[in-house]
This record gives sequence, structure tokens and C-alpha cells, in this order.
Amino acid sequence: MSYANYRARTCAKQKSAYESSLFAGAILELPFSFYVGIDGGGTNCRARLYDAKGNVLVEGQSGPANVRLGFDVAWHNIIEATNQCLVKNGLEADNFSRVAIGIGAAGVSSKQVCSAFQECAPNFGYINISSDAHIACLAAFDGKDGGIIISGTGSCGYAILGNKAHQIGGHGFELSDHGSSAALGRAALKACLLAYDGIGPCTDLTNFLLSEFGGKPSDVVAWVKTAKPKDYGKFAPIIMDFADKGDEVARNLAATAAQDLERIIYRLNQLGAEKICMVGGMAQRLAQWLAPWTKPILAAPKFDPTYGAYLLAKGANNGFNGKGK
Amino acid sequence: MSYANYRARTCAKQKSAYESSLFAGAILELPFSFYVGIDGGGTNCRARLYDAKGNVLVEGQSGPANVRLGFDVAWHNIIEATNQCLVKNGLEADNFSRVAIGIGAAGVSSKQVCSAFQECAPNFGYINISSDAHIACLAAFDGKDGGIIISGTGSCGYAILGNKAHQIGGHGFELSDHGSSAALGRAALKACLLAYDGIGPCTDLTNFLLSEFGGKPSDVVAWVKTAKPKDYGKFAPIIMDFADKGDEVARNLAATAAQDLERIIYRLNQLGAEKICMVGGMAQRLAQWLAPWTKPILAAPKFDPTYGAYLLAKGANNGFNGKGK
Repeated sequence: MSYANYRARTCAKQKSAYESSLFAGAILELPFSFYVGIDGGGTNCRARLYDAKGNVLVEGQSGPANVRLGFDVAWHNIIEATNQCLVKNGLEADNFSRVAIGIGAAGVSSKQVCSAFQECAPNFGYINISSDAHIACLAAFDGKDGGIIISGTGSCGYAILGNKAHQIGGHGFELSDHGSSAALGRAALKACLLAYDGIGPCTDLTNFLLSEFGGKPSDVVAWVKTAKPKDYGKFAPIIMDFADKGDEVARNLAATAAQDLERIIYRLNQLGAEKICMVGGMAQRLAQWLAPWTKPILAAPKFDPTYGAYLLAKGANNGFNGKGK
Repeated sequence: MSYANYRARTCAKQKSAYESSLFAGAILELPFSFYVGIDGGGTNCRARLYDAKGNVLVEGQSGPANVRLGFDVAWHNIIEATNQCLVKNGLEADNFSRVAIGIGAAGVSSKQVCSAFQECAPNFGYINISSDAHIACLAAFDGKDGGIIISGTGSCGYAILGNKAHQIGGHGFELSDHGSSAALGRAALKACLLAYDGIGPCTDLTNFLLSEFGGKPSDVVAWVKTAKPKDYGKFAPIIMDFADKGDEVARNLAATAAQDLERIIYRLNQLGAEKICMVGGMAQRLAQWLAPWTKPILAAPKFDPTYGAYLLAKGANNGFNGKGK
């Protein structure tokens, strides 16, 4: 069944089901048979089905569920991944009324976006939506207080402290996302052009990067016209390899990225996050460059983000109920 | 007459006229009656008509002549501004065979672009094309050796030294153009978001900038999705005003922009440019922030860029004849 059909059929039902079950704070006590946790990222959407006792039953996976790609795309993939779980578990597809669902989706950046996205939902028995950062933070500390830094293609600091959510950074590639693979890649290309012009250090890294563009700065300039953050981010592992080998420019880039993350760690800690987990594809490599004072604060996440989405399905605070930022 | 008609009528003639008159280095001795200098910028195109003795006769002006807007647009506006000159001087429009024209156009960044652009020219008696930076440098030193830094919406260092042209920086807004109004505006918005997140200093400037977006970082993030360099650049005069008043963040931004320009000054000087002229809308304001060692090197330009285009029309080296970069 298409997303449009879902909506036509279920919109009226959904609202009343949602309104009757909405609350904030404590864990939901409604007797649902099944709980689904959704980790909706920009590349794919992961779903995990739990029973009422919290046992993991099955998992599903589909395409991207970043709401910036459009609510239709996101819902289509969330429904697809959820139905995979239901069918794998011997249940009927589309039978959502017995299911409590928790969704953490990339791009859910405000209460307004959250509400608008939820308006388009099919008739789940209960639904609770937040951002990908929120479920990662819920999961990392099993619903208790703590902070995370996501360092992947982009970056973002996030903390849940006394039922209040705090976001630091993560305002996008153009002006923010310091300490991400995309920011690192862009900084390296800048350094590469400075080296070419003789106004910055010329090293193995800058020579390598320029050689990737046939030795022609004009090809670098042409490339950036259409480059996306993930394109810049592809250079990040190479830059970190050069840094490990002692390349001066690469070391400076890695150190600057680490300092950017340190500022976020300091701020989250200052706000009250006693422990902070580094997550995302760049976390491991940049963590090695962090100053010693960060070590006692850093912790390993307890669970993966899909588990945080399950906590949302169980009624955990979604950060958008007036108590959040 | 449309540009397309020009081309159909004149293309064959043009090539032979051009090929017979092409040479490099010294000043042209062909006995033209009129010389036109064209300063083709991204906002408008200025033309100036000179007689064979070098007297200024009249001027014309039309729309943008940045070749990145398309060769048709650029040629249309160059022809328009040139014909204004001819008609004002009592001559016949489109009668270009008696005219030697020199053109400095924004976006003429390589010999390839220069040649392709020239292929589309109508039948001038003589034609010589280069970049906007090249004519600004020719004009600043009356055709002799020297360097310039253009600091406007973008930035670029340029020097003509012993018949060889050198460009430093100016690789575009995404990765380069340090010390320009656009780069300054972007850096200020970054500082504004850092202040909002509590991970950078919060000052009158950062408060002012955030208030320009209704106090909402999400509105800053939405704005940058479509912002052009000139949009970022609009904040530059305000930032410099705050810097003059002693605002900490604004002072740091101005000092960083000045340091970026100092690196270009140092490099051009190292390459052999004994004197360097600062030109463009940001030049005056940022020059005040430069380190004292730059003062003996800096000079005022002798002439405006249109005069540099006239020197091209007289046969000055265009920087694209194999001796240039």
C-alpha cells in the first residue's frame, strides 16, 4: 500500500490514538504487544521489533529516512522497515494499531518539524518521534542523563539532562559541523590551495590532494561547485592517515578538528553532562587527538541508537514537549 | 544588431584580422584611429574611447561582462558599451574595423577561456583580452612591474613581473577568497553560531548578527542554503564598524582577514613585486588592519582598470601568451 493510501485511510484514527496516548516524562504503561524502534538516517532506516517484555524479536532495514528528503520518503522507508519486522515475526503487514513505535529521524530539528512529520503518520497505537541525536543519546545512557558528540559526515553535540535536551553545534556544513569528516576534508583542500600558491606549508598531504585533481587548482575549484559534504568527507580517512604518519599540515588539521570537539565536550560538561560518548564514523579517529583532560569525561555508549528509539516507543521524553530547547 | 548576427557576419574576418595582428610583449604600432578599453565586471561593463594620441574622448557603460555569465551576455554588454562610445563620438555603431580593443573581463581565468571568448568576437581591427585582475595590475603600474590585491566581494593577489603574470589565491568563495567581504561575513556568522551555543565569545556583534535573523539560529541555517558571496559580503561593513568600536569578535575577524592579506602581500613581494596596490571595495578598510611591515610595500594605483584595458588595446602583454602562468 502506498504512503498516500495510508494517509487517506488512517489520518483521522491516528490523531485520536495519538492524542489519547500522548504524555511526557515517565515510561508508558499502556499494554502494547509490540514495540518498534526506528533509527532513521540519511543513508538507511533500521527497525527493531521488541515484545512487551523488552526482548528483541527481529530487525528490518530500508532506505533513507532523513525528513529533509521529504516526509513521504521518510514515512515510506519507516513503514517498509517496520513491515519487514512484522512479517518476519509472523504478523500482518500494516497492522500498526497493536504497535507502539519510537522514531529517531535525521532532520527532525524542532518541535514544529516533529509535529508536522507526526501529522502524516499511519495509525500506530502509540507514536513518539525525535531526532537521530536524541535516540543516540537516550541509547548511550539507557535513558539517563548524559551527553554525546556525533562526529560523522557532519557533527553535533547533544545532551539530555534532567528531562531537558541541549544541542550544541550541528548547524550544517556551511557554517558549523566542526570536527566532522566534511569539515576536515574542506579544510584540507583549503590548505592544498594555500600550498599551491606558496602561502601555506607544502607537504605530502597537500601534494597528494592536488594530485587527486590532476595537479590543477582549477579542477579543485570546478569540483567544489557541486561537491556535497559526503564528497569532502571522503578525504577524511586519508587526512588522518597522513596525520598518523606525522605530516605537518595533516597534524594541524586533526588537532584543529579535535580542538573544535573539545569545545563541545567542555560545554556539554559545563551544562551538567558528567559523561560524554563519542559516536559516528569519525569519533574513534578524532578521539585519539583530544586533550588529556577529556579522557575522564569520555565514556563508551551503552546501546546503539535503535535501542534509544525503542525507549521512545516505551514513552521516554522526546525532547520536544516544552521542557526541551 | 544581435550578438548572433555579429558572429555570423564577422567570424571569418575576425580570425584573420586577429591572427595578422597578434603578437606579444611590446606596444602595438599599427595605426589605428581609435582605441577602446573595456573593464568588464560582474555588475557592469565600462568602456572608454581613446584617440591615437592617447586622449580620452568619451565613455560608455552597460551591464555585466563576467564571462561566467556566458560569452553571449559578456559580448552583448561589451558591444553595447563600445557602441555608446562610438556614437557619442559621432562615429557609426558597429564599425569596429578601425578600432583596437583591449578587454579585461571577470572570469577570464585561463588561456583556454581567453581563446574561446575571443573566438566569438566581432571584427575589431585588433583585439587583446585578459582578466579583470590583469588590467587592474597593468593600470596600477602603468604597464610596468608590480602587484595588486583585489579585496572586494572576493579576493585575489596578482602581479606582473618581467612579462610574466602571477596569481595568488582567488580560487573562489568555497575554499579561497580570504580577506574578502564574503569571507568576512561568513566568518562572522560562524562566530555568531558559536556564541549562541556557548562555545565562542558572545559580543555586541554576535548579538547583532543573530538579531538580524530574529534571534533564531535555524533562520541562519535556512538563509545560508541560498546565500551568495555578495549576500555574506553585505555584513562586512557592519563587522568593520564593530571592529572600529573595539568589539572583541569583530576585531579578531578583521585581524584574521588582514593576516590573510598579509600572506598574499608577502608572497607577491617575495616573487619580486616591490610595490603592491590594494584595490576593491574592502581594500581601504582592511588596509588599516595590516601589520606595519606592509606599509613601505603598499602603493596607490596610478590609474583605474579601464586604463589597463586601453594598454591591452595598445598591445600590452595579456599574460596568456605562454610566458604567463
